[in-house]
Amino acid sequence: MEKALKLYQETNQKLKAFYLVMFLHGWDSSTEAPHDAMEYRSKQLGVLSEMYYRISTDPAYEQAIETLYQNKDQLDSVLSHEVVERRKEIVKTKKIPVEEYVKYQELMTQAYQVYVDAKRSSNYELYKPYLLKVIDFKKKYLQWVKTSDMKGYNIFLDEFESGFSIAEYDLFFNTLKERLVPFAKAVSKLKSNYNKSFTKKSFSVDKQRIFANYLRDVFCFDPNRTVVKESEHPFTTNNGTSDVRITTHYHADNLQSAIFSAIHEMGHGLYELQVSKELDDTMSGSGASMAMHESQSRMMENMIGRSDVFWQRHYPKLLELFPKELKNTSVDDFIKYVNTVSRGFIRTEADELTYALHIMVRYEMEKMIFNKNIDLETLPTVWNKLYKKYLGVTVPNDQVGILQDVHWSQGSFGYFPTYALGSAYAAQIYHAMSKDIDINQSINDENLRKIADWLKEHIHKYGSSKPPKEILKLATGEDFNPNYYVDYLIEKYSKLYQL
Amino acid sequence: MEKALKLYQETNQKLKAFYLVMFLHGWDSSTEAPHDAMEYRSKQLGVLSEMYYRISTDPAYEQAIETLYQNKDQLDSVLSHEVVERRKEIVKTKKIPVEEYVKYQELMTQAYQVYVDAKRSSNYELYKPYLLKVIDFKKKYLQWVKTSDMKGYNIFLDEFESGFSIAEYDLFFNTLKERLVPFAKAVSKLKSNYNKSFTKKSFSVDKQRIFANYLRDVFCFDPNRTVVKESEHPFTTNNGTSDVRITTHYHADNLQSAIFSAIHEMGHGLYELQVSKELDDTMSGSGASMAMHESQSRMMENMIGRSDVFWQRHYPKLLELFPKELKNTSVDDFIKYVNTVSRGFIRTEADELTYALHIMVRYEMEKMIFNKNIDLETLPTVWNKLYKKYLGVTVPNDQVGILQDVHWSQGSFGYFPTYALGSAYAAQIYHAMSKDIDINQSINDENLRKIADWLKEHIHKYGSSKPPKEILKLATGEDFNPNYYVDYLIEKYSKLYQL
Repeated sequence: MEKALKLYQETNQKLKAFYLVMFLHGWDSSTEAPHDAMEYRSKQLGVLSEMYYRISTDPAYEQAIETLYQNKDQLDSVLSHEVVERRKEIVKTKKIPVEEYVKYQELMTQAYQVYVDAKRSSNYELYKPYLLKVIDFKKKYLQWVKTSDMKGYNIFLDEFESGFSIAEYDLFFNTLKERLVPFAKAVSKLKSNYNKSFTKKSFSVDKQRIFANYLRDVFCFDPNRTVVKESEHPFTTNNGTSDVRITTHYHADNLQSAIFSAIHEMGHGLYELQVSKELDDTMSGSGASMAMHESQSRMMENMIGRSDVFWQRHYPKLLELFPKELKNTSVDDFIKYVNTVSRGFIRTEADELTYALHIMVRYEMEKMIFNKNIDLETLPTVWNKLYKKYLGVTVPNDQVGILQDVHWSQGSFGYFPTYALGSAYAAQIYHAMSKDIDINQSINDENLRKIADWLKEHIHKYGSSKPPKEILKLATGEDFNPNYYVDYLIEKYSKLYQL
Repeated sequence: MEKALKLYQETNQKLKAFYLVMFLHGWDSSTEAPHDAMEYRSKQLGVLSEMYYRISTDPAYEQAIETLYQNKDQLDSVLSHEVVERRKEIVKTKKIPVEEYVKYQELMTQAYQVYVDAKRSSNYELYKPYLLKVIDFKKKYLQWVKTSDMKGYNIFLDEFESGFSIAEYDLFFNTLKERLVPFAKAVSKLKSNYNKSFTKKSFSVDKQRIFANYLRDVFCFDPNRTVVKESEHPFTTNNGTSDVRITTHYHADNLQSAIFSAIHEMGHGLYELQVSKELDDTMSGSGASMAMHESQSRMMENMIGRSDVFWQRHYPKLLELFPKELKNTSVDDFIKYVNTVSRGFIRTEADELTYALHIMVRYEMEKMIFNKNIDLETLPTVWNKLYKKYLGVTVPNDQVGILQDVHWSQGSFGYFPTYALGSAYAAQIYHAMSKDIDINQSINDENLRKIADWLKEHIHKYGSSKPPKEILKLATGEDFNPNYYVDYLIEKYSKLYQL
């Protein structure tokens, strides 16, 4: 037992050392590396990946985890949770035939390339055979790994959000169907009345950078532990709690894009900054789950960053930077601008009100694919029908339809639902926080320290040392309840659209 | 034999994979990482270093090298050179008692910290006991590793510039003593007459960046394979030939500092960019030696970058960026400014004419320490005497005297001489190049492509697949001859100072 623990911890230190490589490589390749750097580097990464693989699948390590699992009652709660999760993965991995796994890796590389071409040319037929092969593998996977406790699509859902199954997601999406779909349809028919002239102006990227830097202070993004830079697609990455980095992307013709990208990523970043340092030496020193992470970014971006009180407080700074461009724009105009609802086809461009409905389309389709054996020939037709049904829009072509997301080409099923779940977590957490602190007052402070502190104490500090379900319950005092989310949206948009 | 070769190459691929980590970490920590990032990262680096150490000292790997060494006649010239060099290191390392090595590593950490404090407070006495311990270890080291072919200070010289011993360096420095010391003394008494008013102006850092970017094109610093950024101390780093990065450092009150830092580092960088891609899979895909590398940076910085013809060509661009600041400054004023000779105490601030004399002081002292058993109590006195003798200056205190360089505190003896040797290589190579191409004409071209091509063909392409001595002979048709260097300096400065 003692020997097993020592081996387990030593191996983990090795695995964590490799995270440094992936962290540095990922950051560098997205923000800095010259165009031709990748070929040489890819060989090195290949060698390092192989080393990582050998260490992580060393039979002695797996045996140590098994030993710890058998004695998990003697472990502290952090370790015991880790061991249970890690063993679940190992047991699964062992059930996949190695030759099938290798073939699947090759398929994913091909599928990605074909997907990119197919999207560019809006040619679903090109992509279809690869998507079907990916789905075929994933269906076989479900057969290999199923247990008496879990089978079908639930297996994927659990992999992305431990403890969440169709039961929880159906409850969530059915609430959306009942309450949000009709409301969103009504709102999206209304026109948002505000002076839009400034949206046609050009906004100096240098000045946008100054504003992003200003926001860094507001969102408590400690300069001694963070980096803010630029990349094509905004993202967050970190190495422990003292090196957290985000990127944003500036567009001179779109003042809000960089602002909300930065706030969203700082929401993710603040989570990683505030994980308890005591978890540094464990495997639990990072955010708890996909949806829990998304709850933090979306709370910052939407619930705080697009709120009335936030812009009452910070619009003057924006005005100071863009006095000419915003001369005839009132703070109310600006608030309406950043909260405009529009019926679109593209998930990544969706507004706060309709975002989850885009996800609902994907959730329903994934459920049909894996649990209902839907005829795969009909996928684009089903996609378009569901968009009509939930969002009230007619998808004009597959490029802005079923081809818009890369996820399925990479076998990521069960991932999408966490995006929407994150927003719902956020509303439930926000509601709980509002019982402890005056949130509007805190947003009106010089920075969001009080909110950050509350989130640290109730969410962030745990890292992934507990399952997301348990953290949500600890933080809010109740199980997941999607009504907070719908209540919040209806209240906010009723006010904005004077319904 | 075949098995040995396979093991050798596979192990090298692993070792090279770790270079990616060091490359990314080094770049990131100097240019980007937030202040608090290092603590967490240092644990990961420790684990990775240990893995690297285990791989590089694996007895099977060492046995493979021994097998290849015994059969080196059957290897191609690149491999055979590698194996000889690698074996030399292994044989040496095995002679050092492990416990002494460990103690020495600890000593270096302490010595560095004490050195920093001692320099700050100009307190040599504080530093002395640590320096003496470092020297004591290095003397024992010489006893452990000496062979019938090589002993004493020559061992250190050979470690930094393979094939160069006191015989070559004495020839070099004696030439400097005879010909350069009296000339430099004469020049440094003269005043450089030019309109200096612009040197007091402030030069926008943003515009300096634009000029650095312009120089990037001039020096053929391919944007698809390079990065130019900023750091406190300028440096060059690379990962293969397709990812070469330099930094410079901008000062608003010093127009030339960033320019010549950038050119110097691009000289190093161009070398790495132009190593033959065929060497990518070997251990010979980087510059040949310390001095050969320095020859490339100093040729670009001094012989080309500070030349008359270079500024006749590129001053107009500088003028375009700083029309007000340089209004009354002629190109001749500017050329005199960047070639001003001044008698100073500090090596890193020395001008082109006197730089090698600073090195000569250190070379003579190192020779005395290891081959003449000089009384170590007298080191600062000797330092000051030699500065008086060779540079004609009276050192006012140890801070700008013996405490100015970090090298000795880290046991780097034999390193300094390569700095000066590089300049001498550069002059010899430049002379050989001038027989093949019209250098002034090439400097006057839009960019330095012709010069870069010549250097690639005669120096760069070999990487470290041959010893520097052999590359120098291949490139110039003769053995090392320091007179080219002195001839060049006397001609250039006679003209500048109208002697």
